[in-house]
Amino acid sequence: MQRSESKPLFEKIALIGAGLIGSSIAHGIKNQNLAEKVSITAQSQDTLNTIIKLGLANEATLDQKKAVSDCELVIICAPLGSYSKIIQNIGSILEPGTIVSDVGSVKQSVIDDISPHISKNIHLIPAHPVAGTEHSGPNAGFAELFKDRWCIITPPSNAEQSALDKVSKFWETLGANIEIMTPDRHDMIMAMTSHLPHLIAYTIVGTASDLEKSLANEVIKFSAGGFRDFTRIAASDPTMWRDIFLNNREAVLEMLQRFSEDITALQRSIRWGEGDKLFDLFSRTRKARRAVIDAKQEKMYN
Amino acid sequence: MQRSESKPLFEKIALIGAGLIGSSIAHGIKNQNLAEKVSITAQSQDTLNTIIKLGLANEATLDQKKAVSDCELVIICAPLGSYSKIIQNIGSILEPGTIVSDVGSVKQSVIDDISPHISKNIHLIPAHPVAGTEHSGPNAGFAELFKDRWCIITPPSNAEQSALDKVSKFWETLGANIEIMTPDRHDMIMAMTSHLPHLIAYTIVGTASDLEKSLANEVIKFSAGGFRDFTRIAASDPTMWRDIFLNNREAVLEMLQRFSEDITALQRSIRWGEGDKLFDLFSRTRKARRAVIDAKQEKMYN
Repeated sequence: MQRSESKPLFEKIALIGAGLIGSSIAHGIKNQNLAEKVSITAQSQDTLNTIIKLGLANEATLDQKKAVSDCELVIICAPLGSYSKIIQNIGSILEPGTIVSDVGSVKQSVIDDISPHISKNIHLIPAHPVAGTEHSGPNAGFAELFKDRWCIITPPSNAEQSALDKVSKFWETLGANIEIMTPDRHDMIMAMTSHLPHLIAYTIVGTASDLEKSLANEVIKFSAGGFRDFTRIAASDPTMWRDIFLNNREAVLEMLQRFSEDITALQRSIRWGEGDKLFDLFSRTRKARRAVIDAKQEKMYN
Repeated sequence: MQRSESKPLFEKIALIGAGLIGSSIAHGIKNQNLAEKVSITAQSQDTLNTIIKLGLANEATLDQKKAVSDCELVIICAPLGSYSKIIQNIGSILEPGTIVSDVGSVKQSVIDDISPHISKNIHLIPAHPVAGTEHSGPNAGFAELFKDRWCIITPPSNAEQSALDKVSKFWETLGANIEIMTPDRHDMIMAMTSHLPHLIAYTIVGTASDLEKSLANEVIKFSAGGFRDFTRIAASDPTMWRDIFLNNREAVLEMLQRFSEDITALQRSIRWGEGDKLFDLFSRTRKARRAVIDAKQEKMYN
């Protein structure tokens, strides 16, 4: 990537959390010269040491308040379950005009958690870069993670346009394609495309692990296409995913209910040998694959 | 691959069916000089024309009886649902000593279908190369498909050792790692590692397709890691998969029942906000991923 020669988009950006996403953003900010100054705060000194070693921050501190002081943009890159505590800690010291954003995989809960703790002159612009790998932690990050991926921005109805534009510009510069939608819509779509698939992958890998030992070992040994893909999905960060399910409960339960009805119908077709019904479904789903490829979403994400 | 200069392992091999697996075997036979003569039979002249164009057979015929005449090895590379008809057609004209093998993803049903229609001096040695891609048809084949993949051989209890050795040698030469086990054990393992994951992938892609149109379109548009992987699995050949579920009914229903219980428990944990239970499962499944990588089964199969 080329380094822009013009004035950076932001004076100071603060990142709260430096896992896969946080460190990838830091790589991108550096590569694209998106800020004069980057301050990163994390839970552990180990993480901060990695950030320092990678040369990703002007300031790396355990003190959240210090990290966000005088910043124009704060991006929370931490598990959803930690948002309340973070915003209760920093909300009152943010300068008027500061933009608060995040990268969480659920969006209505973010607005519910943050809004009560920031004053009216702080701009909340939640965002969700739809990107990830099976790896986590500060060493897993890389600037190209967001390239050609979607970044969905879900501004509250009263959001200020200039703040929205700035966050959009930020993500565009990191290589993402921007989509603006309501938080509810986002949460419903992600429940189907991401949360339910992860829930199912976690479940089936758990089901296999619970088989009697020799059979479970052979399942691993001969794991074919199918199960092997599921183990990759089921290797995702446990804390992040626990929080996703707790924060997008209604939409996930709705999609799971639909799925359960459908698989029960299929179970019945297998039991009664209804080959036609199986064939019809299996033909229909092939078209969805075509549509995904046409939508250019087929690019390995790790 | 290098061409062996020694005498081929077989005088004449007949392949019944020339889809992804059949044509990949034909490529492998040619590359490895595994037979003096290869005869291929298929359902359509189009398929045979492709085989001829690719130079994969000495003989390409719609006539199954002609294809198998005087052959030492017949490999059925057709959907499981067609086995009965095939063996009723060719079973009585096979020369004494002929080996009958196949590549089907279910094994007990293969023995049940074939055994009654062959005489005692014909050697039935069923096999299952655990390899595939999302693509099907004669043009999708390539010799390296079986390289470093498992080929599970499930000889009936009365199988002759020399016939088993020859089939093992054949698959080893194509690059596969051989495992011998009982058909029941095979069917149980595959129900978990392959058949249930496919069933689930087909289901969830179907569930998504049934959403109201604008939401379904957005699911495709934003399909993230998870759903995107499922669409690849759910793009597999419908006829082949219908037959797998009809022929491995008991084992699939058994594994599906276990899965359903587990996902119902998880559904309850989400509804009641039991974060600890979710976290415990998600941590446990991570280890399975490590085990799959250690078992060297993580290699993209297309």
